Parts: sequence; structure tokens; C-alpha cells
Amino acid sequence: MKKKIDGKALVFCEGAFNTPEGKTAHGLVRFTKRYEVIGVLDSNYSGKDAGKVLDGKNNGIPIFANLESAIKELKVTGAMPESLVIGLAPDGGRLPETAKSTIKKALSLGWNVDSGLHDFLTNDKELVALAAKNDCRIRDVRKTPDRNQLHFFSGDIEKVDCLKLAVLGTDSAIGKRTTAQIIVQALDNESRNAVMIGTGQTAWMQGAKYSMIMDSCINDFVSGEIEHAVVSAFENEQPDVIVIEGQGSLMNPAYPGGFEILAAGRPDYVILQHAPKRLEYDGFPGYKIHPLKKQIQAIEMISGKKVLAVTVNHEGMKPEEIIPACKEITKQTGLPAFDILANGADELIDIIEKELKKKRAE
Amino acid sequence: MKKKIDGKALVFCEGAFNTPEGKTAHGLVRFTKRYEVIGVLDSNYSGKDAGKVLDGKNNGIPIFANLESAIKELKVTGAMPESLVIGLAPDGGRLPETAKSTIKKALSLGWNVDSGLHDFLTNDKELVALAAKNDCRIRDVRKTPDRNQLHFFSGDIEKVDCLKLAVLGTDSAIGKRTTAQIIVQALDNESRNAVMIGTGQTAWMQGAKYSMIMDSCINDFVSGEIEHAVVSAFENEQPDVIVIEGQGSLMNPAYPGGFEILAAGRPDYVILQHAPKRLEYDGFPGYKIHPLKKQIQAIEMISGKKVLAVTVNHEGMKPEEIIPACKEITKQTGLPAFDILANGADELIDIIEKELKKKRAE
Repeated sequence: MKKKIDGKALVFCEGAFNTPEGKTAHGLVRFTKRYEVIGVLDSNYSGKDAGKVLDGKNNGIPIFANLESAIKELKVTGAMPESLVIGLAPDGGRLPETAKSTIKKALSLGWNVDSGLHDFLTNDKELVALAAKNDCRIRDVRKTPDRNQLHFFSGDIEKVDCLKLAVLGTDSAIGKRTTAQIIVQALDNESRNAVMIGTGQTAWMQGAKYSMIMDSCINDFVSGEIEHAVVSAFENEQPDVIVIEGQGSLMNPAYPGGFEILAAGRPDYVILQHAPKRLEYDGFPGYKIHPLKKQIQAIEMISGKKVLAVTVNHEGMKPEEIIPACKEITKQTGLPAFDILANGADELIDIIEKELKKKRAE
Repeated sequence: MKKKIDGKALVFCEGAFNTPEGKTAHGLVRFTKRYEVIGVLDSNYSGKDAGKVLDGKNNGIPIFANLESAIKELKVTGAMPESLVIGLAPDGGRLPETAKSTIKKALSLGWNVDSGLHDFLTNDKELVALAAKNDCRIRDVRKTPDRNQLHFFSGDIEKVDCLKLAVLGTDSAIGKRTTAQIIVQALDNESRNAVMIGTGQTAWMQGAKYSMIMDSCINDFVSGEIEHAVVSAFENEQPDVIVIEGQGSLMNPAYPGGFEILAAGRPDYVILQHAPKRLEYDGFPGYKIHPLKKQIQAIEMISGKKVLAVTVNHEGMKPEEIIPACKEITKQTGLPAFDILANGADELIDIIEKELKKKRAE
């Protein structure tokens, strides 16, 4: 296997695996170029296979009850982690006290620690001292870059003439990034050169070559950073297709998102990720998710761009419910709908290929 | 006159007064509780009255060609400034080289310097040394606050049961803040307790007691900071009306704005500022401003809240064109439309008073 950027890693996800708060961990067990994930820590699922729990398919990544048992079991295989990665994305992004003791153990073993939380580990003198003492590294992925490293919007996006797709969602933590990755992977398999633009810390943790971290960016630079990532990918990779990972949702009751992606990323089309069984906004009990049709109208009105297809997140659905749910969405919206995680992306790729040909003909 | 928070000030606006890039200066010559503005620096208008140039009414604030001539002329009156305020808001917020020499002179005279630009004066060792040597202060208003000073959205906004209005616009730099201030002032004159929530650096410079600076805020905290400002104003002032200053415009080609204000500020109504003669987005030549009617639809669809009235910015209009333009807007949109800067806010206040009574009756 190709050596990963940052080598072997354990992903800490105590109490949150297979829940929306575990989305960073889910991203890492599904796919990462940055780490070789050799285990997940969550006592709720200890002894289980991470892929099996998450997607019903074994992926050979074991879940351990805690750091100690992970070390004990991994010793047998001789594969020791070089990093502990915090796989939690709790609402508000604060570090749970329970996580700290595990981080301290990891640092005292000389492992690097990466975190995408708002609570910066590098602000904790005890942890910083521990890292220094054991000659290892703490990285706060979400730390806001200085202004002098950031870009203002320049209009260069107009030069980007390859097909651009944005994967937005009807809620946050609904699978936008995973869908974007599956699309890029499927296009690669068709020997198309597809590049994903990451916009969250998880995409960075997965080793996305072109990315910005939207929620930790200074507001006035969000548009410029999106444009810069897209333009850089276009100039360096000469891609056939650029797929931009969305953030949040347009009509979220508190954290509206995706507008800068539509404005500064200038996608040709939007692919909209939706979870039919999710009735309330993630983290906002009592706030009904706006109807799919209305959210499509809002996207198309604000951006002047069309939604090309709906991709379905099957959370809370039985396997046999998925296809009927997709058919129902098509009936309601007139748009093709697919669960590409469960059923593969072939049909969606056919649609994208058609658009690619149109674009080429322009 | 009541002593202002930061005393007498000169406003630097070389080459930009009476243009969109001078909007910070315009705000300060029209209204500020923070400074006593005793002059503006812009050689384009030297010798003229700032109020006359801007709004056709003398306000007794002279415009000087440069710092030297300002000092010479002010010596006569005996009124010497304590501060130089950078009144420029250039696209991108970078500091023009021409400004630096004036700033150095001000500091060497022992004046404080306040700047709302993205280019931080406090990053310039020469300026910092000069300030230290002359025992004066440089403030970069736009410096991003640390996370530990910022608030996440909590839902407390639901407790705020006074009438809440958001002043949004069909473009940036179109007069949202001025309109918000006129409304608050007019309500005060009706002995209503009205509070403005500032969301830009100019509002801060004008001494807004409840404010956040949206464009320099870390993206993930924008909603929480808006909510915190509104909730603080509600709890401390028990106001009848809260008026939230908008930022940007929903459909701006690169810098969409106002979404977090709608989501986290939860206004009962939107008042929409519009400049009938402005055809292209400020700073984006070639990008037609979306039709007023379409922008109203977008606001109402995204937020589920109604636009209560359109307030007109008369830039590029002859006095006799204003009333017909308002009538035309009402014909197009079915909404009342007023130029409250030219003609006063009485009619708009009547409408707000009606809503206030409805709200009280709830």
C-alpha cells in the first residue's frame, strides 16, 4: 500500500461513532490519503469493524474500547500508530474532558495528535509541554490562518472553464463530503481527471490537496479562499471536473451555509445531498428541515444554477426503503435521485458525463 | 455638546470622499458617538463642507486638502484633534501607500490612530514604534477577536420578543447602516426605546454600544456573535425595537451576505435598502444587480420573513426624480418605498409603529 502522508493513526471517537458528532471519524475510516487508519476508539462499538458499523461492509478497521486495549491488541500485529486523530465534531466544536486523558496518553507515547476542534490543544500548556517533552507534534487543523496567508476574491474564477459541480445539502452533517469523494473516485475510474475541493477540516484530514477550512476562515476571506482553491486546482491539474464540497445548508436555522460556494465557486450545477428520514435540523431539535422542493427552489433562485440530481443519505432507512425513497424524490422534484453510497454512482456519472460533453461542445 | 467617547478627530479619506470607498468617512461625518469629527482630509473637496458634499446640507465639518492645511486652519479655532481615523473602505480593505505618510505625521504629533482596514497598522513596526515613542495608541478595529471572546449560537434569540427589524440591501455600500440609524433616531424621537445592532467596523467607529464586526469574525462564530449582540441589547436595554444593520447583499456575485442576520438575528421584518440608479454590483463592473423584485423574493424565500418596506438611496438621482422612483418601486413590488435620508422617516415610522402595536397585542 502507498505510504500515507502522515502514516498510521488511531481515531478517537468515544461515544460518538456512527452519530452525526462522529462525522470526522466517519470520513477517516471511509477514506483518507493522509493517514493509514488502524483503529477507532469508541467503547460503544468495541470489537466491531468500523466499516461494518458505518456502511454495513467490513473495511478491516477495528474499533477498540480505549487506548490501552488498542495498544494491547495492536501489539500482536506489530502495527503501532504514529498519530492520534480526534474524530469528534461535537456541536460547538468544544473538546470533551474525557478526550483529554487519552490525548495525554498518546503524547506521552510520543504520538502526534491532530485535532479539528475549536478548542485548540495548542492553547493547553500541559499538552504543549507534554508534546515538547516527548518530541511529538500537536496540530490544530481549525486554527484560523493569518490574513497574510489568505486571498480576497479576484474574479479569476471566470477563467475556470472545466465542469464545476458543488455538492450542497439540505442539512449539515448529512454526507456532502462523502458524496463528493464518491463522485471524484467514480470519475477517476472512468479515467476522467476529477479534483475535489475540500471546504472542511475533515477533507483536510483526508489529505485533500486543494482545500480551505471554511468555518475557521475569517469571514471576509471565505469567498477568496474558495476561489483560490478552485483556480489552483484548475491551473495545476487541468481537470475535466472540479467537485466542490459544500458546507452547512442554505436554510439552516442558525448556521446558513453554501452561499459563498455558489457565488465564488461558480458551479455549473449543484448536486443536493438529502436524508429523507431526517425531519429536524441536525443540532436544532424542534426545527423542521425545510421541504426538499423548497430548498431546491432556494438554491436555484439564489444562484441561478440548476440542481442536477439529489443524492440520498439512507440514515434510518431499511435497505428495501432506499429505491422507493429515490423514486418518491424524483416524483416530487422531477430530479434524478440516487443513493450512491449504497448503490454506486454509475447512473449519476452518466448524467455528469452528458454535462461534460455539453461543456466540451461549448 | 456631550463629550464624545474618544474626543476630537480628523477623518482621512484622500481621493475617496463621496464615493463608495469613502463609506466609513461618510458614516463618521453623518453621525458618531465615538468621535467629535472636526474635519475630513480629501484634496478633491478641500474647502467644502462635508455635509454639503455628501447630503446637500451643511453640517459644519470642513474638508481639508491634507493634514498640514488642516492643522494650519484648525489652529485658528484652537480645536486640535486627538485622533486620526482612517475613513477609507477600499475594496479588499488594503491600506493605500499615500495614507501611510499621513498616519506617520499624526502619530508623531501624538494623535491616536484608528483604522478599520484589513491591513493592520499594528503589523507595521515603524508605525508601532512611532506610536510608542509619542505615547499614543493605534487601534485596528477589524482585528479578528480570539475564539475565547466569541460566542456560538445558543438559541437564546428565541427569548427576544421585542420587534426586530433587519436593514438589508440590494448591494453592498448602499446605505444600510445610515438607514438603520435614521430609523433608530426617529423612533427615539417618538420616545420609543430603539437600539441598533452594528455589524460593521463603521458602526463600531460610530460608537454602537451593541455590535460585532462581521467581516473580520471567524466564520463559525458569525451567527453566535449576532445572536449575542441582539440578546445583550434586549436584556440590558429592554428596547421596544431592535434594528440590525445588514451586511453585503444576498445575491452579490462574490460576497453574499445577510444570511446569518436572517437566521441568527431572527428579524420579524426586513427593510430593504435599494439604489434605483445603481445598475452593477459595487466593485463588480459587468455584474448587473439582480432585479429588486427578485431580491425581495429571495429574502422572503430564504428567511420566511416579509420585506416591510424599501428604502431608497438617491445616488445619481435629481431631487425631483426621488418621489417618482419611490412610486415606481411601489408599483413594481407592492411595497411602500421612501427616501428617508432626503424626506425623513415619518411614513416609515408609522408603518413600524403599526407593527409594534401588533407585536404588543401578541
